[in-house]
Amino acid sequence: MGIVPTFDPNFKPTRVNIPQTNLPRIVIVGGGFAGLNLARSLRGKSVQVVLIDKHNYHTFQPLLYQVATAGLEPDSIAYPFRKIFKHQKRFYFRMGEVESIDSASRTVHTSIGDLSYDYLVLATGSRTNFFGMNEVERHAMSMKEIPEALDIRSLMLQNFEAALLSDQLNERDGLMSVIIVGGGPTGTELAGALAELKRHILPKDYPDLDVRRMSINVVEAAPRVLAAMSEDASKEALEFLENMGVDVWLDKRVKSFDGHQAVCHDGTVIQGNTLIWAAGVQGNPVLGIPEEHIVAGQRVTVDAFGRFGEREFAIGDVANLVNEDWPKGHPMLAQVAIQQGKLLAQNLERYIAGKDMKPFSYRDLGSMATVGRNKAVVDLPRFRFQGAGAWFIWMFIHVIQLIGFRNKLVVTLNWMYNYFRYARDIRLIIRPYRKSVEDEEFVDVTSR
Amino acid sequence: MGIVPTFDPNFKPTRVNIPQTNLPRIVIVGGGFAGLNLARSLRGKSVQVVLIDKHNYHTFQPLLYQVATAGLEPDSIAYPFRKIFKHQKRFYFRMGEVESIDSASRTVHTSIGDLSYDYLVLATGSRTNFFGMNEVERHAMSMKEIPEALDIRSLMLQNFEAALLSDQLNERDGLMSVIIVGGGPTGTELAGALAELKRHILPKDYPDLDVRRMSINVVEAAPRVLAAMSEDASKEALEFLENMGVDVWLDKRVKSFDGHQAVCHDGTVIQGNTLIWAAGVQGNPVLGIPEEHIVAGQRVTVDAFGRFGEREFAIGDVANLVNEDWPKGHPMLAQVAIQQGKLLAQNLERYIAGKDMKPFSYRDLGSMATVGRNKAVVDLPRFRFQGAGAWFIWMFIHVIQLIGFRNKLVVTLNWMYNYFRYARDIRLIIRPYRKSVEDEEFVDVTSR
Repeated sequence: MGIVPTFDPNFKPTRVNIPQTNLPRIVIVGGGFAGLNLARSLRGKSVQVVLIDKHNYHTFQPLLYQVATAGLEPDSIAYPFRKIFKHQKRFYFRMGEVESIDSASRTVHTSIGDLSYDYLVLATGSRTNFFGMNEVERHAMSMKEIPEALDIRSLMLQNFEAALLSDQLNERDGLMSVIIVGGGPTGTELAGALAELKRHILPKDYPDLDVRRMSINVVEAAPRVLAAMSEDASKEALEFLENMGVDVWLDKRVKSFDGHQAVCHDGTVIQGNTLIWAAGVQGNPVLGIPEEHIVAGQRVTVDAFGRFGEREFAIGDVANLVNEDWPKGHPMLAQVAIQQGKLLAQNLERYIAGKDMKPFSYRDLGSMATVGRNKAVVDLPRFRFQGAGAWFIWMFIHVIQLIGFRNKLVVTLNWMYNYFRYARDIRLIIRPYRKSVEDEEFVDVTSR
Repeated sequence: MGIVPTFDPNFKPTRVNIPQTNLPRIVIVGGGFAGLNLARSLRGKSVQVVLIDKHNYHTFQPLLYQVATAGLEPDSIAYPFRKIFKHQKRFYFRMGEVESIDSASRTVHTSIGDLSYDYLVLATGSRTNFFGMNEVERHAMSMKEIPEALDIRSLMLQNFEAALLSDQLNERDGLMSVIIVGGGPTGTELAGALAELKRHILPKDYPDLDVRRMSINVVEAAPRVLAAMSEDASKEALEFLENMGVDVWLDKRVKSFDGHQAVCHDGTVIQGNTLIWAAGVQGNPVLGIPEEHIVAGQRVTVDAFGRFGEREFAIGDVANLVNEDWPKGHPMLAQVAIQQGKLLAQNLERYIAGKDMKPFSYRDLGSMATVGRNKAVVDLPRFRFQGAGAWFIWMFIHVIQLIGFRNKLVVTLNWMYNYFRYARDIRLIIRPYRKSVEDEEFVDVTSR
């Protein structure tokens, strides 16, 4: 069921209204890092650009965890597409969900009707991968979109309110405790932010609770956290986490979770009512892509230029671009998506003009993760460092990457305020989280 | 169905856990202006205070309309109770909904269990009053709480997105147009904010739509807008609204609305798919109050001290306090609620000590409303003025009334930014609004 952007049940669009021109129409599906950078880079070129996204805003995903932990509001990390493209001519945004593509008739079928294309670019990103574990999926929270991050914020606060109502020690402990599955950047940053809440905020908010009994767990299948970064970074991040009181479980894979405890492959049992799944993502393709192009992990295999059909392209997380340097495909990273988006803008212009396209070549700019105040790890291609300097670099890089002056300002001021006051003032349960765990068909919480 | 603050279906609290002491326990139901001011004024007194609210935050209702019109985020006008009362001893907050009271056993029955009291203060405020018009209620939006304001924001943006998809002129016009029922401060301020969106933001966001065809209507039953203010203020506000392109319909009462058009008592038909009901509120009492105390408008009749039982009090919008100056009860205003809350703190101390209580006497500090940039009206007891000066006074008064340094800062910066940039950057559809209009039982959107 797609998004019908009105609550009038009589309103059923059948065709996406876009002016027909003589210029080639490029339809971009998804406005994440890949789609957004492609669309912006097409500015001024002789093409018509249509961007379709189910949200009316771009999400700066690297800071989602701060929305979940009451450090930032959604407006800090979201930016309306219509604002971004206000001055771009021959650009059209439509809010809707693409259901399938038909390359024979060059049409996308969407929740807001059909749309023809001359060139189609799939930039639908990735979604949480529970590797077929339905029970875990039913009880776990995921954090790929803003509504999900808000749900995590609400649920954790609701569970603390509930803990106050319980006479049972183990029930209280469970309601306070959190299990984060996945020790990558998301899991590590989330655990660090929760550890700061536990240290500075929650004991004052809940003087009746023994907040020391709150446990924050990170479960990682690899032998180290931040496994994609350097050994130094992993070692330092682990030390940061452990000093902040986070329980890190390495070499362990969660195989079940019943809403109260997680059980790992080796039999280890970890207590906690809130489980946040940050252990893996998979591509998010749409229907209609030739089956031979879909590989394990639901990504779409493309050639060196991003093509999977004569006029169909895929970029970003959903694309599986294999080359000599990356025989297993490129990592699902913002930087890859951004670079692919920018290159494809040039390549589409060349392609339309009948020129040869340039193959994609990923330039690794380095990676970084933060664990808490004054605690971050940075791996640059020739240089790596950790600690307070890394933390300031991390903040600077994230702020300058935000779109728009307002967002940069809001985030900077929030961070300054939170830093100096040890504050997380947005601990608001605006929409209480409710998920039915008894129904077989569990509720899609992102759509509420 | 009350709020159960966890999604664990096995968790069923039966008793609100509050330490039993020798001090008298004052249970305050509702943390709006009345309950909040009472609870804060009880600081340092020899009583135990328990505040119950269905939200974990206080809402600064006068600025709700700015959340609805993409000018402010919820964190600007909401403040967590636990933060407000961080340093207050013998104070307990519990998130839950009171279902009924039993004065014989001095117990409140809540969604989180039962709680005994020595003194009970009902400060449950008011809710939207549709005067029994179910059809209007089913299709209208109300704006008493933050989730409702967010729903209005989402719905209006969704309707603009939908208008882009329609070939039909009248359908597009309907999707763009808004009917505000009620020309009091809420309706007037909302209409002004929408007129600014229409002038400065929407034409740039939606170049494909003829935004000039968006109509903004205010329907008021009285012969003037801001009927509770001076004639001067009404006249000036009407002129402001009309100059901004708002259609003001005076002496008209909406009697039906089918989701597309409103019909008034005199047969006037007003087109628009979005109807916001700001035409009236009623008290929000709980079960268990003696019937003879409940008057028309669902308010609870109290004596000059706020009492409706030996140990039961009501303050704020829900209280119907009649005296010589106010033979029909006091108006439902923030100032009345604040003053009643503060007085009751003193009176409870006197009452417990066996002293006489002081009767309530409302001191009118004046009233004000804003229509747009540089446009406001202010009525002070001895003095009234309009225009840019009034607008600055309006902003200043509202900012200093916000709780906490952070909220004052965030709102001030947002207003400065919006003023100088003519911006409303928070036009984000975070949770798409969905309301089933086919079901007889319509969805309670505030609970999603």
